[in-house]
Amino acid sequence: MVRIGIIGAAGLSGLELLHLLSRHSEASVKLVTSTKYQGKNVSEVFPELYQYSLTFNSNETDVLGCDVVFLAVPNQASLELVPKLLDQGIRVIDLSGAYRLADTEVFAKFYKLTHTYPELLKEAVFGLTEFFRQQISGARLVANPGCYSTCALLGILPLAELLGELDQHPVIDAKSGVSGAGGRVEDDSMNYVSVNENFKAYKVFSHQHQPEIQQYLSELSSYSSDINGEVIFTPHLLPVNRGILSTIYLHFRKQVDGDQVIRKYTEFADKQKFVEFMGKGRFPDIKMTSHTNRCMIGTECDQSGQNWVIVSSLDNLIKGAAGQAIQNMNIMFGLDESLGLQ
Amino acid sequence: MVRIGIIGAAGLSGLELLHLLSRHSEASVKLVTSTKYQGKNVSEVFPELYQYSLTFNSNETDVLGCDVVFLAVPNQASLELVPKLLDQGIRVIDLSGAYRLADTEVFAKFYKLTHTYPELLKEAVFGLTEFFRQQISGARLVANPGCYSTCALLGILPLAELLGELDQHPVIDAKSGVSGAGGRVEDDSMNYVSVNENFKAYKVFSHQHQPEIQQYLSELSSYSSDINGEVIFTPHLLPVNRGILSTIYLHFRKQVDGDQVIRKYTEFADKQKFVEFMGKGRFPDIKMTSHTNRCMIGTECDQSGQNWVIVSSLDNLIKGAAGQAIQNMNIMFGLDESLGLQ
Amino acid sequence: MVRIGIIGAAGLSGLELLHLLSRHSEASVKLVTSTKYQGKNVSEVFPELYQYSLTFNSNETDVLGCDVVFLAVPNQASLELVPKLLDQGIRVIDLSGAYRLADTEVFAKFYKLTHTYPELLKEAVFGLTEFFRQQISGARLVANPGCYSTCALLGILPLAELLGELDQHPVIDAKSGVSGAGGRVEDDSMNYVSVNENFKAYKVFSHQHQPEIQQYLSELSSYSSDINGEVIFTPHLLPVNRGILSTIYLHFRKQVDGDQVIRKYTEFADKQKFVEFMGKGRFPDIKMTSHTNRCMIGTECDQSGQNWVIVSSLDNLIKGAAGQAIQNMNIMFGLDESLGLQ
Amino acid sequence: MVRIGIIGAAGLSGLELLHLLSRHSEASVKLVTSTKYQGKNVSEVFPELYQYSLTFNSNETDVLGCDVVFLAVPNQASLELVPKLLDQGIRVIDLSGAYRLADTEVFAKFYKLTHTYPELLKEAVFGLTEFFRQQISGARLVANPGCYSTCALLGILPLAELLGELDQHPVIDAKSGVSGAGGRVEDDSMNYVSVNENFKAYKVFSHQHQPEIQQYLSELSSYSSDINGEVIFTPHLLPVNRGILSTIYLHFRKQVDGDQVIRKYTEFADKQKFVEFMGKGRFPDIKMTSHTNRCMIGTECDQSGQNWVIVSSLDNLIKGAAGQAIQNMNIMFGLDESLGLQ
Repeated sequence: MVRIGIIGAAGLSGLELLHLLSRHSEASVKLVTSTKYQGKNVSEVFPELYQYSLTFNSNETDVLGCDVVFLAVPNQASLELVPKLLDQGIRVIDLSGAYRLADTEVFAKFYKLTHTYPELLKEAVFGLTEFFRQQISGARLVANPGCYSTCALLGILPLAELLGELDQHPVIDAKSGVSGAGGRVEDDSMNYVSVNENFKAYKVFSHQHQPEIQQYLSELSSYSSDINGEVIFTPHLLPVNRGILSTIYLHFRKQVDGDQVIRKYTEFADKQKFVEFMGKGRFPDIKMTSHTNRCMIGTECDQSGQNWVIVSSLDNLIKGAAGQAIQNMNIMFGLDESLGLQ
Repeated sequence: MVRIGIIGAAGLSGLELLHLLSRHSEASVKLVTSTKYQGKNVSEVFPELYQYSLTFNSNETDVLGCDVVFLAVPNQASLELVPKLLDQGIRVIDLSGAYRLADTEVFAKFYKLTHTYPELLKEAVFGLTEFFRQQISGARLVANPGCYSTCALLGILPLAELLGELDQHPVIDAKSGVSGAGGRVEDDSMNYVSVNENFKAYKVFSHQHQPEIQQYLSELSSYSSDINGEVIFTPHLLPVNRGILSTIYLHFRKQVDGDQVIRKYTEFADKQKFVEFMGKGRFPDIKMTSHTNRCMIGTECDQSGQNWVIVSSLDNLIKGAAGQAIQNMNIMFGLDESLGLQ
Repeated sequence: MVRIGIIGAAGLSGLELLHLLSRHSEASVKLVTSTKYQGKNVSEVFPELYQYSLTFNSNETDVLGCDVVFLAVPNQASLELVPKLLDQGIRVIDLSGAYRLADTEVFAKFYKLTHTYPELLKEAVFGLTEFFRQQISGARLVANPGCYSTCALLGILPLAELLGELDQHPVIDAKSGVSGAGGRVEDDSMNYVSVNENFKAYKVFSHQHQPEIQQYLSELSSYSSDINGEVIFTPHLLPVNRGILSTIYLHFRKQVDGDQVIRKYTEFADKQKFVEFMGKGRFPDIKMTSHTNRCMIGTECDQSGQNWVIVSSLDNLIKGAAGQAIQNMNIMFGLDESLGLQ
Repeated sequence: MVRIGIIGAAGLSGLELLHLLSRHSEASVKLVTSTKYQGKNVSEVFPELYQYSLTFNSNETDVLGCDVVFLAVPNQASLELVPKLLDQGIRVIDLSGAYRLADTEVFAKFYKLTHTYPELLKEAVFGLTEFFRQQISGARLVANPGCYSTCALLGILPLAELLGELDQHPVIDAKSGVSGAGGRVEDDSMNYVSVNENFKAYKVFSHQHQPEIQQYLSELSSYSSDINGEVIFTPHLLPVNRGILSTIYLHFRKQVDGDQVIRKYTEFADKQKFVEFMGKGRFPDIKMTSHTNRCMIGTECDQSGQNWVIVSSLDNLIKGAAGQAIQNMNIMFGLDESLGLQ
């Protein structure tokens, strides 16, 4: 049994980890921390987690006996905790954005934080499971991807070999439920009456997942920002609890063969347990992936065959956060990748 | 033109006052206060209020030149402000609960506040327009009713003369949209993910509108708590922005004639501009009263004719707060009661 | 492995059965029928059910090789299918209301149908698991309870021994999400714009679950409609996908001891896998039971101790339909009651 | 007083016309038709329209005495009715898509209908008020624009003079509430449980508003589809009742001066009663335009100044349908453009 600690267990991602892990046959949660609920029983505060008899701890470094710790805390807290945990010999899966970006200047710009442990950035493995399995299996530190990044990268990267033919930057118009956009933050903007019967774009040209998508798209494909320009990414806030749907626009220099596109997606999805390609002209909605660890993808082109629209969808709390984190944990500990996720 | 000040203009009730008053031909808002937005322009902070060129003030007693002030602030703030405003010769319509209950002990119990101006309680007129028009017209201080109270009292009181025949206390099972239940409070319980796809009872046997309903039901009908017991009132939180629907259960000692019930409601509604009786066996939903100042009522009995269910509905921000406040203002200043409300 | 047929598998209850059974280790779905999707693959029509490679059949009696059939079809269809299936030696769990009421006249009144197989009514076992385990284990035909009935009966019946002390009929004010109120019916009343931002009472004094609650409350407790009158039951339509919350009002002749009430609920819940009592003054919301097979209950009384409010909540599609049906199937086939339900 | 007939008055656009016209001081509704509600009183079927004492008629050509008729019926019905009404000397404002597209082949492709009155297409005036006031004032037939088209064109066209500098087609990623996407259609796809907690793209590369946007963008700006390619337009279904938000991506050949962009928008908005520009870096959400006839616009560019994101929002039932139709009617009859719309 893998012994697990969850720092920030009472946040939305932490709670989702608890939900999923309650059905995991080879892992057991030993430590949960929460400043707000310190000393209270998990199942008392959250009756739906009745399977747990744990008490919320407030000492985030009281991780003795854990094999791995999930960090589900704000960026700054993660930044500081990671080296402390690694020093104690604990493996870490960080759900924050603290260790995802290679460039500390870009990090500073988008996160408004100075990166105090740049040496760890080289060691951190980006936890986009489908592309980094090998590295994840031996990693001490996994930087679990952002929800928007996972959705966009899994939507585009199956076409990696074709991206050199792009005439222009991809346009990623992404829509997320509230839990993916800072859900339980106690601020007016996430209040029910602010969100319900509403819809808006936010952080236009300034969301921190833009450089994340940019970096890994460049690293994993023939796409080049020098030639194609920066990825355009616009997040929006949907009045739903969970789910992300990304509508991605690619413009190629010349016609792209439809069969080739279908083959790329199909071959990719066939190798992956949690990616499904719906085919040309069929598109996922967020309900299809809700409460699952799956990313579903559909695509269509216009008559010219140069313009392609890709729609990808996932559950931001599962494949976009806690689910993918558990998928990565399974790999780190030599377990079946899908344990606890079906 | 009636010159108006709104204290707490950036809260939900305050904003609704601004919305409604922008269409009022005989009143003009001269002063709006908000601590949070002090110095900012109304239409900049709230673009939907583009008709206003006012700036938020933070000095709540800077009311010189106002004929009437609406208080849309928490109970304690209202409690303190009312005597100060009256001393300046300003008439006041208080949307809080500070001056509604006659009994200061009951007030202390339900509001957790000591009432420091009990002498004003005798002067305050309860702003349930349909029953206190005469008193409102000459009032210095109108205590605008609670949203739940308005909905319940308008549902029951048309049967005032029959209530002596009740075998038991009325049961009022009330459901309110978020704006009526403390909507923009920046607290976790009103967060989108807490409310959406959810529903709950709250403040069971302890909501402050219970004694308000109790008091005015006793005052305005043959109902007696000594004989019939206390009104049972249970509020619930609906995942909608606005609207209240109350399902009211009355049990009479013996069969009550259906025609008589219909006649009572019909006669009452015919005299009122903002009350509509839908008839026996027809019931309002909250959409029918949404964005209006109307209370709609339907009723049905079982075969015995002893058990009656009444359903009443209104928009908690309008007939349950800002709309009724304006209705009362119209009466206070000798205007047509429905000005600005149709 | 129990071999299962699902008649009406593409309706909301049928789909929920498929969802839940995909995780059941001792049962396997062999047959699914749907007129609408006949000949189509389950996972093609419903991508979220990707685990199934079954094709929708349209022949509802093609059940050869099934050990048990779940009927998730309208009342009239169930009424006709049950004897045909029993004749083929198939055990049946009927999710409709066709075989729940003992009195065919009451059935005719509330269902607007003539009961053509009254002899089977005596054999049918009411599938309220917590009260009929013994009978269910040997039953050929289980009449799975209505969602409202399950929620109300589990809320009230733990107090069975006290109900003789009621001064009056219970009042059950119930609120259900759309899937429990006829959800996917293609009719204007369940259209998104009709339901969203709305709330209403429906079938006042005429809902078919009223006589169901009435019958089993009488059968399983000291409550008597002759003395106490008929149960008052008012259903309402909540703008959420799933979940029921019932607010139940009991009025006793004299004070009821709080400790006794707590003890009754606690003892009952302790013996049941899927019932949880939250204690006095604590209440469930629908999110706590959403996506689970649990019924959660809370209660409170007023100062007199004569008036008790009980709040019970469950997921109408799970404990209120498909989940309880599987719980019953587990019992019928000698399996652990909770298989596939945790 | 302008005497008005509304054909299809019980649909969503028809009901919105009735709502708005109840506050119009210079117009009066004389005829309302509905097949479904024929013979019933408007206020009985729709209690929120209590101001009307009209009865639904079913004879769509019984328009004697009307000065103007609004057609709020499906495309085919409008196609047929328009010549009949014009022949009776009645002016027509058609809210359907029957007379918007100049090219009957394109019409046939997107609407799956043969255009039987091509000669009327030349006479029909496109009712995008801000650009066709002069023609509207004298028109016999106004083809009121589609909701998506209005939102996209008002967002882009203020930059008409710059569009020749586009490096590529605009990408319009549009999101609409249910009422704009075929709301009350009695079909499974608009059922509450299908839409709630969901989000999807639909009619990718095939929505009938694409050629409408394409045609008027070409006609009213320096944009050329020969050079820039076809507009890319993807509609999505939002789980809200009303509102459209369009996120529009423009890529220019070289840097575009921000001040120039701001000036263009500001100058345009200053001349229009119902268009507001929020400035660079500020964006509307759908709540800001909900229940108003306004279109609000914001914009931002990236560091290169070549990529611009425009966000435009409006209420699909008002500025996107009934409101703009009334705005056009006001112009046709020499009234103040904003009568009944504030």
